[in-house]
Amino acid sequence: SSVPTPIRATLFPGDGIGPEIAESVKQVFKAADVPIEWEEHYVGDQIDPRTQSFLTWESLESVRQNRVGLKGPMATPIGKGHRSLNLTLRKELNLYANVRPCYSLPGYKTRYDDVNLITIRENTEGEYSGLEHQVVRGVVESLKIITRQASLRVAEYAFYYAKTHGRERVSAIHKANIMQKTDGLFLKCCREVADKYPEIKYEEVVIDNCCMMLVKNPALFDVLVMPNLYGDIISDLCAGLIGGLGLTPSLNIGEGGIALAEAVHGSAPDIAGKNLANPTALLLSAVTMLHHLDLHDKADQIHNAILDTIAEGKYRTADLGGHSSTTDFTKAICDHL
Amino acid sequence: SSVPTPIRATLFPGDGIGPEIAESVKQVFKAADVPIEWEEHYVGDQIDPRTQSFLTWESLESVRQNRVGLKGPMATPIGKGHRSLNLTLRKELNLYANVRPCYSLPGYKTRYDDVNLITIRENTEGEYSGLEHQVVRGVVESLKIITRQASLRVAEYAFYYAKTHGRERVSAIHKANIMQKTDGLFLKCCREVADKYPEIKYEEVVIDNCCMMLVKNPALFDVLVMPNLYGDIISDLCAGLIGGLGLTPSLNIGEGGIALAEAVHGSAPDIAGKNLANPTALLLSAVTMLHHLDLHDKADQIHNAILDTIAEGKYRTADLGGHSSTTDFTKAICDHL
Ligand SMILES: CC(C)[C@H](C(=O)O)[C@@H](O)C(=O)O
Ligand SMILES: CC(C)[C@H](C(=O)O)[C@@H](O)C(=O)O
Repeated sequence: SSVPTPIRATLFPGDGIGPEIAESVKQVFKAADVPIEWEEHYVGDQIDPRTQSFLTWESLESVRQNRVGLKGPMATPIGKGHRSLNLTLRKELNLYANVRPCYSLPGYKTRYDDVNLITIRENTEGEYSGLEHQVVRGVVESLKIITRQASLRVAEYAFYYAKTHGRERVSAIHKANIMQKTDGLFLKCCREVADKYPEIKYEEVVIDNCCMMLVKNPALFDVLVMPNLYGDIISDLCAGLIGGLGLTPSLNIGEGGIALAEAVHGSAPDIAGKNLANPTALLLSAVTMLHHLDLHDKADQIHNAILDTIAEGKYRTADLGGHSSTTDFTKAICDHL
Repeated sequence: SSVPTPIRATLFPGDGIGPEIAESVKQVFKAADVPIEWEEHYVGDQIDPRTQSFLTWESLESVRQNRVGLKGPMATPIGKGHRSLNLTLRKELNLYANVRPCYSLPGYKTRYDDVNLITIRENTEGEYSGLEHQVVRGVVESLKIITRQASLRVAEYAFYYAKTHGRERVSAIHKANIMQKTDGLFLKCCREVADKYPEIKYEEVVIDNCCMMLVKNPALFDVLVMPNLYGDIISDLCAGLIGGLGLTPSLNIGEGGIALAEAVHGSAPDIAGKNLANPTALLLSAVTMLHHLDLHDKADQIHNAILDTIAEGKYRTADLGGHSSTTDFTKAICDHL
């Protein structure tokens, strides 16, 4: 049989616990014989003038060429004259949709059972415009920008996702009762796309009410699509339902078919280098990356091994109430493959 | 013994179920011998040019003169050329702080026990500026405005509230990592006020993380203070933890010592006039109004009667899983007095 040509994927181990959890992904991929060849890039220690950030142009070029990547946590160093690393990636790679699946992990109990939600967040504009100024002393303004182009693009993605993943409903989350023009435009775009998908149910839910309903009964929702800041808030709320950001995968979709999977939790500098970090979020993100590459069998194998290991409960990291090291937990997953 | 002079308070029964739940408050106040004389005002059927809304100038004058009021749900009629009723009240009466206590009701089980949170929301500016415009076709902007004056005012209120209510900690909720100037100014003001209250702990929490933590463990928080939209979102999330907006009181604080208590749930037109509505949120709001008037004994009596009735479980409205009418539930509360 012929040896398959490996797929090149960019890997940003990131800061803090990043290198340890990235190592875990590499181990598990090796054990599962995933035909991926990693191209590693680190966050630089100097500002690259071409990106205005500590991320080098070459590292971004790597994702643009490979069209697929995996990213650990990146802490933006404090100081002036440079952009946040996460925002630089989103802007430079035009990562317009952030997809966060959020489902209960068998065997890991929280207050909620059978959560199964997908949040799809517009990732490039809205409250994240970076446009702020002081009008007079003591009065500052910030501009939220909503465009038809970005709203249509993320709405298209949400419905496409719902359809291709057998989902029944898309809920557009908004505050158009207050922001009639901006959120109103977002809703208008969602409605236009909804019309093209008659088989998918469509509804609109005001963000405050959505948060209340999510907390009372998450089963009321299926796929949620929303502007940037609401997505930031709601995806974290959803993560909380099933145990936190240490357990939720994330996939960013960019123009030209780019996909950058990422663990959205922090870099946890307090436990960095101590072999204590939980690699689950990065592993599950890597699984979404494999699905994106149509490597569904490998994705399912690894996914099941992660879930089985957590469900079994013998090897768990401290954040899940266990005593395992990162490497022991990783080894247990490999053994489950 | 001398008959106490009654205190005049404005009452806006509101729309939908409003009149029924307002009637419930009147009954309970009468049964408890509360020295309050209601001055009722209804939402008009014409736009009053002096308020640009269906709320008449006279009704607002009534609150300004009495300095205290209670408000049922008001549904803003759809159409153009007028302002939302809720927003008109906030603007015209300068209701700068919205206080929402959120605590578990004994005997009414949710996924969360012993919730005891106070959200304090800036109520006049931020994303609610109403300033939006289209830049070019397909590109719309909305202005968020944060001022030093409004931020200091709500921060002062939050710390004053914490101190006078024996609370230990104030958490300022923000997204200053993205909106450095606007949310940054809000935080700066909170810090200035915090410095004057060394006995109250102070912390700053990013909104996305706050939502995740609230869902995982609400006991991590005590008093939360935040800009307008975050307050809208987080106060509803908190309400969800204990069962929903039908159970949470709300008090708006305005300049000149004005206090307008309100039920923040909707007007539920589907069950209006059917004697099915749950008056709890309006009753608990009326209780906060009594505390504001220093009628603490009456407040406590009524509060206990409401909680006892719900805890007993014999008389509950349909939204709480019971079969009682509004009037039977109200009568049960009166009997508990
Ligand atoms: C770190 C921060 C800038 C970022 C955001 O606000 O988008 C984070 O919360 C996220 O969700 O990825
Ligand atoms: C009805 C709506 C305008 C209002 C708001 O957004 O403030 C409501 O959600 C509230 O919290 O009182």
